[in-house]
Order: sequence, then structure tokens, then C-alpha cells
Amino acid sequence: MRKARTAYGGAIHEAVEWEGKLKLDDGRIVDEHEVIWLTPIEPRTVFALGLNYADHAAELAFSAPSEPLVFLKSPNTFVGHNAYTRRPVDVTYMHYECELAVIIGKTARNVKTEDAYNYIKGYSVANDYAIRDYLENYYRPNLRVKNRDTGTPFGPWIVDAVDVADPMNLKLTTHVNDKLVQEGTTADMIFDIPTLISYLSSFMTLSENDVILTGTPKGSVDTAVGDVVVTEIEGIGRLVNTIIGDESFTNR
Amino acid sequence: MRKARTAYGGAIHEAVEWEGKLKLDDGRIVDEHEVIWLTPIEPRTVFALGLNYADHAAELAFSAPSEPLVFLKSPNTFVGHNAYTRRPVDVTYMHYECELAVIIGKTARNVKTEDAYNYIKGYSVANDYAIRDYLENYYRPNLRVKNRDTGTPFGPWIVDAVDVADPMNLKLTTHVNDKLVQEGTTADMIFDIPTLISYLSSFMTLSENDVILTGTPKGSVDTAVGDVVVTEIEGIGRLVNTIIGDESFTNR
Repeated sequence: MRKARTAYGGAIHEAVEWEGKLKLDDGRIVDEHEVIWLTPIEPRTVFALGLNYADHAAELAFSAPSEPLVFLKSPNTFVGHNAYTRRPVDVTYMHYECELAVIIGKTARNVKTEDAYNYIKGYSVANDYAIRDYLENYYRPNLRVKNRDTGTPFGPWIVDAVDVADPMNLKLTTHVNDKLVQEGTTADMIFDIPTLISYLSSFMTLSENDVILTGTPKGSVDTAVGDVVVTEIEGIGRLVNTIIGDESFTNR
Repeated sequence: MRKARTAYGGAIHEAVEWEGKLKLDDGRIVDEHEVIWLTPIEPRTVFALGLNYADHAAELAFSAPSEPLVFLKSPNTFVGHNAYTRRPVDVTYMHYECELAVIIGKTARNVKTEDAYNYIKGYSVANDYAIRDYLENYYRPNLRVKNRDTGTPFGPWIVDAVDVADPMNLKLTTHVNDKLVQEGTTADMIFDIPTLISYLSSFMTLSENDVILTGTPKGSVDTAVGDVVVTEIEGIGRLVNTIIGDESFTNR
């Protein structure tokens, strides 16, 4: 099943797909543009992978890492499906990144790779925008690159883990203004999902609604104000986001 | 006023100082060793500063940074006063770091330095342990250095902001087994508290119970299993922590 979290009629409602529309938890059927899509869960700790696809690492002129490169993301950076993301006025390199999001379902510590899938609640799509202008700093990636307000669209749905036969073999695509700009497959991850859960849980306790953003394949292209960016993962979801100028954000 | 959050008698209670003991929110007076001290607040987003004291940067052979070096910490890493912190079996460099913790009191965005103190709820003490063995990685500081379970003692109290006359002029000390090993003053921060709030809120919305760990002065010395580490800040609190072997942690 696919479940969204939406705001409608003055309250927050869970919603499921219903003949091309949304069926709210109180039984109402609404069009998908009548609701505000929230993130499909309220994320607790969010881990994001750097350079977890060899082709993307090569594109950024790095060699593939020998251990997972993981950084944290803060709650304020997440927005749901059909939202706006701010582009700062003074930057050149704002890159989308289509990523499979893994949502943890229960407490996990010292998990073996062969047991890892038992700890997953479901999957979603994230667009982990990076502002590469701000990268040059001893601490990488610094907060201004990856933790800006509105910088991480996440959704539209959480798809139950039981409904995803092979999460390590899903096609990822990004379209900007209907043009295909990024294409890859989760089969090309350097550290696969079980390895990531095993690695993280070896020194940290994972909890329900922790999220792992598993990295992005190659295909980074600059974006501009007004671009409509669609990150899509086969069988998981199609996440739509529009880029808006930082200076006009508060005046809309 | 100083307020702690404690567990006692099957429930969580706020507590205040009362003639050398604790007075719980239900009126009971208990000894400080009868309760489990929790973190004084449940932290939301936690920011930590790297190299924010020039003498500590020099000690680690770095030049002082030209902009704040900030990384995030995850909720699982925090423990309260009088807790145990795990030392991994295979490491050499586990360093305490005595830090003034600034706790945000209300939503903050684009805050000017002259208004910054209005957004602070209070102050506490953190011991932001680092396992420097794990530092050598493209992403710095990586999770294994700074986000391990139990790796960040935090407390004992939150001291109301109104009760701290000058947070930029407080003495910090660390004692290991009663020996003074670290001594400094918040007056030596490179980026002061108003600058940090202004900087972070320029691209992220800060919220109530976000925490800023403001960095540590020089005086890093290795620690061993069994060490009792006391980080103390004048007028704020005295935070006690004991280091325990990673391999024996689960057998106590």
C-alpha cells in the first residue's frame, strides 16, 4: 500500500491512492491538487549518503569511497510533494539528486546484513538538493549545502516494504521541465541497503521513522528559478518540486 | 532557575534544586543519586561547532576557521548527568570536550546579532566526546566520531537565560579523576553566540529546543575505561560522566 500524509480541511489526514485521486482517512475522496502534501512520515534522524554510486563519484572527480560516507540532515529541510524549494540568489550550482529513501520501522542495533530488510517499514523518494557553491570548507558537506529550509523534497508516498520485491533493482530518473536529465538504477549502489543498515546500527541505535537517503547516480545539471524538477523511482513514486527564487520566496 | 528532567518512581519528572537535593514537580524531595538524570530537554536539531576556540584549533594543527564550522548531531547520542559513555575497544584517541550548550526558546529566522539573545531559552553543559581515530575520511567529522550511542553527555540542568548575566564570559573546566585537564573561557570563542544564531538562522529556521554546542577550548587528553570525567561551566552546571568499555557495556 502507498500512504501519504496530507493537510486538508483544517486537519492532517493520512491518504491512499483511489482511482487517480486521494482517499482520506475519514473517507473523503479529493483531487491530489486540493491537498497540501506533507512528508509521508515525520522523519526522526535522517542519514544521507555521499558518493554512493560510482558513476556519480566519478562525475564529481572523486574515487569511490571504501566505507559509507554518511551525514545527517535536519527536520527543517524537508518539504512534501508539489512544494517549492528556494534557490539562493548568489549561487551557480544547485543540483537535484534523485534518491531512494529507506524508512526504518523498528528499533535496530547491531543488525546483520541478512536480517536488515526486517527493519524496514517502507520506501519513498527524496530529492536531496545540493548547493555546490558552498562546498569548499573543511567540514563537508556543510550545512549551507544540504540543510537549507525547503532543500529536501520528500514523498509523495511511503510504499510498504512488503510491496517492493527488489529495492536493489529500481530505475531512478529525474526530469527538468519534462526533459530527462538523470537516469540510473539502485542496482549500482556501492553500499547496498542491508550494508548501510548494518553499518549504521553497529555504532548507533536506529529507531522507527529514521530515514536513510541512499545516494544518487550521475546526471547532475544546474537548475534555474522556475524549473519543475520531477524525481521518480520505479514503483515507489513521482515527486514534483518547483524551484523558486530565494528573494521572492517570502513575497508569494 | 535551574531545571532538570529526571526519571523517578516510574515516571518522568521535572526537578529543581532544593537545599542540595532535588525537588520533583509533584513536591517530593529526593537525593540526586535516587533519580536517573535525563537530558534537560529533548533536543530537536542539534548543531555542534568545530574549532570554535583558536587555542583548540591550534592544538589540532588547524588554522582558525573564517566561517562557523557546524555539523549536526543525532538524538540517540545524548545521555544525561551521571551516565556511562562507551569507549570502543579498538581506539586510542577518545577525547572529552567541555562545551557551553545554548538552547533555543522560540522560532528564529534571519535573526540579527543584536536580537539574538531574545531567542535563547537557557544554557547547559555538554561533553561532546570525539573518537579521533575515525576522523580520516572525506566527510568530516563522520558519524563514528561524533554520533555514537551515549557519546554526548548533556546536563545536568537547563539554567534560564535570564539568570546568566554574561554567557560570553564563563569559565569552563574538565577534570578527569579529579585532575584538572582542560581550562578555558567562553570569552575565547571565535564566533560568539549571537553570531552563531544569526548565521544559522540566515538559511535555516531554528525552533524551540534546538541546541547549539558552541565548541571547546584546548586541553584534549586521551581517556581510559573507568575514568570519571567532569565537565563544568561556571554558573551553569557540573556534568559527571563515567567511561565504560564498549565490550562490557551490554553486560552490566
